[in-house]
Amino acid sequence: MKKLNDLMEKIIQRVNINLREPLFDVGPYVRNIVSLNQLTKFYAFYGITSYHCLNFHFSRSNLAGSYFLGKCNVSDSILYKSDIRGDELKRKGEIFHFEGLDIPLYEDETIRIKDSFLIKTLVHNNSHDPENPEEFIIQNTVSTHYANIHGSNVEGCFLGPFSTVDLTILHDCVIGAFAYLQIKELDHLEVPAGTIWISGGDQFEFRYQHDPDILKEYIRFKAGGKPQGMFLEFVKQRKEDFLRVFDVVNLETPFSIPSGASLNRYAVIKPKTRISQNVLVAQRAYIENSFMGIGANAQENCYIINSRLEGYNVTAHGAKIIDAELGEKVFVGFNSFLNGNRDYGLRIAEKSIVMPHTIIDLTEPVNIGASHLVWGCIRNQADVAQNTMALSELASISGKFSRGRMKFEGNGEQFIKGFQHRIEHILEANGAYCDGRNMKGHAQSTQNISYNLIQPYPEGDLKGIFPRIDIFP
Amino acid sequence: MKKLNDLMEKIIQRVNINLREPLFDVGPYVRNIVSLNQLTKFYAFYGITSYHCLNFHFSRSNLAGSYFLGKCNVSDSILYKSDIRGDELKRKGEIFHFEGLDIPLYEDETIRIKDSFLIKTLVHNNSHDPENPEEFIIQNTVSTHYANIHGSNVEGCFLGPFSTVDLTILHDCVIGAFAYLQIKELDHLEVPAGTIWISGGDQFEFRYQHDPDILKEYIRFKAGGKPQGMFLEFVKQRKEDFLRVFDVVNLETPFSIPSGASLNRYAVIKPKTRISQNVLVAQRAYIENSFMGIGANAQENCYIINSRLEGYNVTAHGAKIIDAELGEKVFVGFNSFLNGNRDYGLRIAEKSIVMPHTIIDLTEPVNIGASHLVWGCIRNQADVAQNTMALSELASISGKFSRGRMKFEGNGEQFIKGFQHRIEHILEANGAYCDGRNMKGHAQSTQNISYNLIQPYPEGDLKGIFPRIDIFP
Repeated sequence: MKKLNDLMEKIIQRVNINLREPLFDVGPYVRNIVSLNQLTKFYAFYGITSYHCLNFHFSRSNLAGSYFLGKCNVSDSILYKSDIRGDELKRKGEIFHFEGLDIPLYEDETIRIKDSFLIKTLVHNNSHDPENPEEFIIQNTVSTHYANIHGSNVEGCFLGPFSTVDLTILHDCVIGAFAYLQIKELDHLEVPAGTIWISGGDQFEFRYQHDPDILKEYIRFKAGGKPQGMFLEFVKQRKEDFLRVFDVVNLETPFSIPSGASLNRYAVIKPKTRISQNVLVAQRAYIENSFMGIGANAQENCYIINSRLEGYNVTAHGAKIIDAELGEKVFVGFNSFLNGNRDYGLRIAEKSIVMPHTIIDLTEPVNIGASHLVWGCIRNQADVAQNTMALSELASISGKFSRGRMKFEGNGEQFIKGFQHRIEHILEANGAYCDGRNMKGHAQSTQNISYNLIQPYPEGDLKGIFPRIDIFP
Repeated sequence: MKKLNDLMEKIIQRVNINLREPLFDVGPYVRNIVSLNQLTKFYAFYGITSYHCLNFHFSRSNLAGSYFLGKCNVSDSILYKSDIRGDELKRKGEIFHFEGLDIPLYEDETIRIKDSFLIKTLVHNNSHDPENPEEFIIQNTVSTHYANIHGSNVEGCFLGPFSTVDLTILHDCVIGAFAYLQIKELDHLEVPAGTIWISGGDQFEFRYQHDPDILKEYIRFKAGGKPQGMFLEFVKQRKEDFLRVFDVVNLETPFSIPSGASLNRYAVIKPKTRISQNVLVAQRAYIENSFMGIGANAQENCYIINSRLEGYNVTAHGAKIIDAELGEKVFVGFNSFLNGNRDYGLRIAEKSIVMPHTIIDLTEPVNIGASHLVWGCIRNQADVAQNTMALSELASISGKFSRGRMKFEGNGEQFIKGFQHRIEHILEANGAYCDGRNMKGHAQSTQNISYNLIQPYPEGDLKGIFPRIDIFP
């Protein structure tokens, strides 16, 4: 395994050179976070469909348990159980609109990952970088458990566990655990754990800071150790269920699903689950004893347990919904943790928006009304007053506003419109509105997919390293 | 599936152009022999080890259920459940000795398959063509169920079911079912079913012709139909056992095996089987209730059932041994069918050589002595007198000799020495003599192997066609 060890040290060195300002050593965070032996155990796989552009290049890398779709180029990197979904990359001939500029694309966009170590990370969407419109670049970067890199070029960064960078170009930054960024561009900054920061340029800014004392119950990560807390315990308890789906080559769907719906064969579907039309369940999603209404989706690393989603619900990458009833079009953002608890139950009425990285973990029953924005940390009905707001109220805000640990500045209406527009885009892209012919999306285009399994050298110096592989259409 | 259909027609056309002399239309033999849908159902796979040269190129091809090892290049071809084993290809820097010529190799040898349709065919060993020392070429060729292409460049040929071409360069030939050729070179000839033909140039020639009336009980194949007979019935009855081994990604060995032994994870090992040191069991071999003595091997498509092999036994590709006891170093050639039958039992004493394509199917108990040559068709003790001969008797022959349907001409001693030399080479190459450090062979070098699974486009015009794949070390 000499070469794999060399590769790990090379990546640490490359990231540290980038992070000399802020001065940060990723070594103690990533050495031994996954044992080298673990990195040789799992096959990687890529999907082939007749809908998606296809082009893979893997060289001098380890890809344990990772999944690829679309055009992906991975070199000198270690990807551990990471999902690299290139199904929304821009295509040759498209025009990329950016702040009044029209940028025509001369090639299909490709995800390029170089000198990086991604652990259980989700990479999705497309690059929003006008300087590199044909490349979605992740370079000299370490990202840790259940981080999301979403439409964000990332160079020279360390991403803590359950962090999300969304439509943000990052250079030389350290992003703390469970931090969420959607701020266009950021350089040379250390972002504290639990920061939620959305910036719409001059138009609005939303900030929330999770209480560090509460957050550490859910997720904490120190140099020299491994990430710990309730989020990881929750995931570990359900790990066994995934073994079977990864161990069998061709898995039959456990029950018939309605037309237009798509259950990924690497998802876990437990008993008493009902799937409606145009539902999308992505790989590594977990559904148990739940109702998925028409057009609802469960993205990668989602858990939906003992819950009812009425329809057209977006459950973004990594969100968890337990013992909850969500009305139509309720949106639940990245990595949110919604735990109604068996004895109480959580109800959120239609069209409400649960912000990314929200924690709802109840000690009494809680009801949240229709068309509300929901954020931060909610444990009882009293917290609801502090951490939710009617969308209509928010729409009337112009200027500075704060409530509890949340600070808002700018045009509330623009903020809501932007969010709603994005939710509609996600529903469309996922195929929620498909009538069988028109408005097809991921739920329809990934129904028929071939998986190709690749494995590394099994022994010797090269153990754990994958041969160079090039796949063309 | 339009492209797959087009590919099939292209291959038929290319082969037919080669076979205009002898005038032969492969179309009625291969159209519908495997349904196009069947060709989209199975994944193909390739092995990666730290011992074997690695280089794969697959383009514009269908590879259903096929296995690849070593350096393989497949273009514009359909390979259905074929094993392409490149683990004995010549390597760069080696000297290829050919009839007094020393030919240095400037590149690693590669198996190149082009414009061909191979069905359940085994390709193995290396090319013995001095004109193309770095290429093992199969081009414009159709080969059918359980054919073996062994160390033989083949261009413009049709190979019938259970036929074998061994160390023979073939141009524009039609090889009948169950025919075996080992004759250096052959052009523009139609070889009848059941011909066994071995030629050592000026030194010796061995010929046997199976009785067509008997042979058709075992294997027959007519234009417009599918191959039929007992050989295929036998294989079909055991087909179900292979489903599980192909359906699971990582299969645990059912029991511990001694050091130096290697059971391929795509072999079927049924209960009450005992495996000794340095045993090699290749993919698609089937062992049931049998004892495999030290250094014994079971090559691809072998079946060994209710039998005892004392040790250092070679069971060549496709050979079947049922209800039999074989002494030490008994060799059983390609596609031989040895059926002792439960009520009688077959015994063959040590160091005997069962010629390729021998049929032993007993109606009474049969014993064959030590150091005998065994050929043709044997059903009772009377046939033994007709179809076996002490090696010492054969060694004394010089000139013409015939016994029953067998004809021999030349130097008997050279014939035996050549055979024995080859058996020793096979045992060495398979690792039968390994002492843990020295004399390593396939049994040791394939213990640790990674399998990579590849699948075709799942729908549309390209359904069944594999994306272009290039794999480099």
